[in-house]
Amino acid sequence: MSARSQVIVREVGLRDGLQSIDRTVDTRTKLEWLRGAYEAGIREIEVGSFVPARLMPQLADTAELVAYAKSLPGLTTSVLVPNLKGAQAALDSGAHVMLLPLSASHAHSLANLRKTPDAVVEEIGRIRALRDSSGSKCILEVGLSTAFGCTIQGQVPESEVMRLLMAVLDAGADRVGLADTVGYADPYQVKQLFEKAFAQVDDRLCCGHFHDTRGLGLANVFAAWETGIRRFDACTAGIGGCPHAPGASGNVATEDMAYLFASMGQTTGLAFEKLLALRANVAHWLEGERLYGSVWRAGLPKSMAR
Amino acid sequence: MSARSQVIVREVGLRDGLQSIDRTVDTRTKLEWLRGAYEAGIREIEVGSFVPARLMPQLADTAELVAYAKSLPGLTTSVLVPNLKGAQAALDSGAHVMLLPLSASHAHSLANLRKTPDAVVEEIGRIRALRDSSGSKCILEVGLSTAFGCTIQGQVPESEVMRLLMAVLDAGADRVGLADTVGYADPYQVKQLFEKAFAQVDDRLCCGHFHDTRGLGLANVFAAWETGIRRFDACTAGIGGCPHAPGASGNVATEDMAYLFASMGQTTGLAFEKLLALRANVAHWLEGERLYGSVWRAGLPKSMAR
Repeated sequence: MSARSQVIVREVGLRDGLQSIDRTVDTRTKLEWLRGAYEAGIREIEVGSFVPARLMPQLADTAELVAYAKSLPGLTTSVLVPNLKGAQAALDSGAHVMLLPLSASHAHSLANLRKTPDAVVEEIGRIRALRDSSGSKCILEVGLSTAFGCTIQGQVPESEVMRLLMAVLDAGADRVGLADTVGYADPYQVKQLFEKAFAQVDDRLCCGHFHDTRGLGLANVFAAWETGIRRFDACTAGIGGCPHAPGASGNVATEDMAYLFASMGQTTGLAFEKLLALRANVAHWLEGERLYGSVWRAGLPKSMAR
Repeated sequence: MSARSQVIVREVGLRDGLQSIDRTVDTRTKLEWLRGAYEAGIREIEVGSFVPARLMPQLADTAELVAYAKSLPGLTTSVLVPNLKGAQAALDSGAHVMLLPLSASHAHSLANLRKTPDAVVEEIGRIRALRDSSGSKCILEVGLSTAFGCTIQGQVPESEVMRLLMAVLDAGADRVGLADTVGYADPYQVKQLFEKAFAQVDDRLCCGHFHDTRGLGLANVFAAWETGIRRFDACTAGIGGCPHAPGASGNVATEDMAYLFASMGQTTGLAFEKLLALRANVAHWLEGERLYGSVWRAGLPKSMAR
């Protein structure tokens, strides 16, 4: 068990959250969301995705969000990019981090990106070359998705995850995270895979991304934290899910993750009351959508009250 | 991390669950619940509590439930007893285990049992003498409640929990469990306290009892499991809560716990589909009550399908 240390919670509601919802939230509201997260102490935000607007009109204003996010001091701005073209848009936007998803599941990779995992590895090489030739310092992060199982193909062999982990770093990714895109992970599996991955790639393993589909989200976060991971993705109100992974509802809720780490005595820099206020706003903006999370209902325990 | 091994899930819905609900479920329905849990593979059940019927009319038929439970081969029957009088009733009933709660929180102890923790320790000595003189083999288990914090007094010092742990064993308890009665525990705290307790009392530490009030229930179960605990309390549909601990809603749901351990490759002997069928029955019997749990909604992942 590690000593007290800073944990980074990356808010991905504006990307993973909104891509899972049919309605398009207007840009003004998104900026308010972004501002609310920043004011609650969030210092890393995934603001959108450079995918074609015809495929995902909900995220068509990503460049505007990046521009605004970059005006907030100390905020690290991430965007998702599906391919070289998206990477070019990310570099043009000036985002600090571009995150490329790669499905460890062959079947999910074909459904989500219409490419095999190894074709995506090749694309990473091209994106790295593009980034380097542009002179940009934008970090190229790969999110290894369906790393714990897949709604389409079922099990994903650990050996394949480990192979791809090395392959994406060899191809030029700066760092890589492991994602339970569809809510299949269990904490024992999480601990084993993160331990193995750390042993292989050390601090180039940078993030855990967990969904709470079957109630194990926070148990998985804890298990990954135990191995040394200190950056996690989360969505305000626990929305989110991959459109090509049926039943993959619900990232771990940002406010629940904040509570987990606060209760463990870890520093996140997050202001709990402001996160709950943001959640209330999100509930208003997304009225009619199913929201998730636990702690908003019960509030903080008396043992944590100031 | 321990190797694969049997985990015992003790169903406490008929006691912890029903005591938190105003309505009284009729005996016939309770017997059906008990039978359903047994048929789903549950081999330890807390069937009720020998408290005065005027205080808790919901549990007035406990002796009948014990008699039925004892007719089911291989089933270990537990009952809660608040004091010496309850212990006499438990011995008369022939239950296999009597579980005496002792609040590590002084304030909660006064509210719940109208006794200080040390007065309860003395009662344990009298109960042990009664049990021994009766010639019964009934196991005397103590549940150290509010071991992770208290809705009334806030923090509960770890040193006080450790002191009481030793005191109850010295007074004659056969074994002791640690309970997060009010949903305040976090997994880091759980791991530390269970590790310390194991170091002190070895296998006389026998059970973890967690509520899911703030979404950390399964994370806490995992953390305790990591220290070596292999018996956990759970309630079908995640009902439960102490009537003297405001806001203490929701034990960990039996079906979610079964899923957690199955996904971790641990053996529980539980039949998942039958647990979900029992949950559906409980939802019918308790129509209008708030139920909890996650996995009933999403179902088993494809990676676990047969």
